[in-house]
Amino acid sequence: MKIDRLCDAIRATKCPACVGLDTELSHLPAGYQPKEQSDSVIAACVFRYNCDIIDAIQDVAPCVKVQAAYYEQYGPDGMRCFLDTMAYAKDKGLLVIADVKRNDIGSTASAYARAYVEKSAADFITVNAYLGIDGVWPFLDSCANTGKGIFVLVKTSNPSGGEFQDLDVGGLKLYEAVADKVAAWGQELIGASGYSSVGAVVGATYPAEAESLRKRLPHTFFLVPGYGAQGAGADDIAVSFDSRGLGAVVNSSRAILTAWKKPQYAGMAAPQAARAAVLDMKQDIGRALNKRGIAW
Amino acid sequence: MKIDRLCDAIRATKCPACVGLDTELSHLPAGYQPKEQSDSVIAACVFRYNCDIIDAIQDVAPCVKVQAAYYEQYGPDGMRCFLDTMAYAKDKGLLVIADVKRNDIGSTASAYARAYVEKSAADFITVNAYLGIDGVWPFLDSCANTGKGIFVLVKTSNPSGGEFQDLDVGGLKLYEAVADKVAAWGQELIGASGYSSVGAVVGATYPAEAESLRKRLPHTFFLVPGYGAQGAGADDIAVSFDSRGLGAVVNSSRAILTAWKKPQYAGMAAPQAARAAVLDMKQDIGRALNKRGIAW
Repeated sequence: MKIDRLCDAIRATKCPACVGLDTELSHLPAGYQPKEQSDSVIAACVFRYNCDIIDAIQDVAPCVKVQAAYYEQYGPDGMRCFLDTMAYAKDKGLLVIADVKRNDIGSTASAYARAYVEKSAADFITVNAYLGIDGVWPFLDSCANTGKGIFVLVKTSNPSGGEFQDLDVGGLKLYEAVADKVAAWGQELIGASGYSSVGAVVGATYPAEAESLRKRLPHTFFLVPGYGAQGAGADDIAVSFDSRGLGAVVNSSRAILTAWKKPQYAGMAAPQAARAAVLDMKQDIGRALNKRGIAW
Repeated sequence: MKIDRLCDAIRATKCPACVGLDTELSHLPAGYQPKEQSDSVIAACVFRYNCDIIDAIQDVAPCVKVQAAYYEQYGPDGMRCFLDTMAYAKDKGLLVIADVKRNDIGSTASAYARAYVEKSAADFITVNAYLGIDGVWPFLDSCANTGKGIFVLVKTSNPSGGEFQDLDVGGLKLYEAVADKVAAWGQELIGASGYSSVGAVVGATYPAEAESLRKRLPHTFFLVPGYGAQGAGADDIAVSFDSRGLGAVVNSSRAILTAWKKPQYAGMAAPQAARAAVLDMKQDIGRALNKRGIAW
């Protein structure tokens, strides 16, 4: 199961970081910038940058997360770049999360499951569960068939995440009710690592909630956004890990893709700056885990 | 504003039906079936079928809804078919709903808004609001700039729709809390028709809830799934209309795309059967509206 492979890769790299390929044109140094503003030329430039970043980080990070939105804006060429980026990362031995947040019901959800769980190089995809189990079981079926996994949106990292997610639904917050369902949906898909193929997205920007969810969901792996650019620090994310240093993978996108712009990485080519940023992130998280008595 | 154009088109056709192009291979008659199972050949066959359906219904229906999932499963070729289908429908004078149910935050949601509100031929897109206003404002911005609109998932038509949506959040159901936000988000974007560019998805399979939402949201246009294949009849959808016969557009996908398989349309080519199914649906809805004293 891919969730076990993710745990193994985190142990091997001692680095629970996910490199977020939310690649925007403004992230590319001059040498990667497109000569013309057509979808195909832009997609080719983004792909070249992604490949160079992947080459530079492939031995230090366990996984990448590729955010579909940035690719879909360039139409079919962008979609090819999205799929090719995931395939390239997979070829390099990285685990791949397709951040698509898809959601629909019945045969439509099955079509999404075919598109991203069954046909693409992704090992995991993100899913929005507002439609209830009807919108989730087609993904569960595909996960059972392929060994791949999903991360269901539970408590998102954004400021207005609580607008609905924090509503009281009778002694529980809505996100806790969703969390409990996520745990139940994943019960049949728990691997040797003790974690299920059905994971949860739990933002780093709400550490008290994350800490409580970590206890509430002992078999649910967390995909953790919000570190760095969104303001959460290493101590905020450390609460999402178990005592073995597993249970979470922390995404960072912009801070890695644009590391070449930062004074501390001056003089480095963008891919090398990205690698240095991943290693700094690894150290930062490692320190925070050590403080909690967790050593790799 | 496109919401006003939708109201005009419904008045002109006297037909509040949306033809759902959730085109699966099993919907295609033998003459449209692909000779080989590659993405590009399949996408070309689906496109040809969609165009023939669009040609056949363009003067009797006001709009089409194109469901992204069925296209995304065929990769970049499918995505091109998705975008080309929407452009073809627009060229024929139809309004176009891109059923993408996208959801994300900040710059990522902005990328989705660029992809589907700004760059595609869609006049409306569907959006999932689990992330709160952060995930909606980029779409509102694009709607304000382009005159296009969104339909936010409020009360979905599927059996497990209530799993989260019906949770009590302090005297209200969650879907009512979402509905109230949808109304508030749309307040600045109300057109001459009295309806806002910010609409709601309200399933026909929960008519009591739909009737109450109709009263609760006087300026919110409904996209109504669940008619036909999912079991809701014309009386169930009639409650979603206002006294002018506006306020809702009712989607039907399978019943139209596969009308050629039904005994009552025997002998018709698939596009003609689709046209006949739309006209039957128009009559069915018209009868139900008449019973409530609404005449076109």
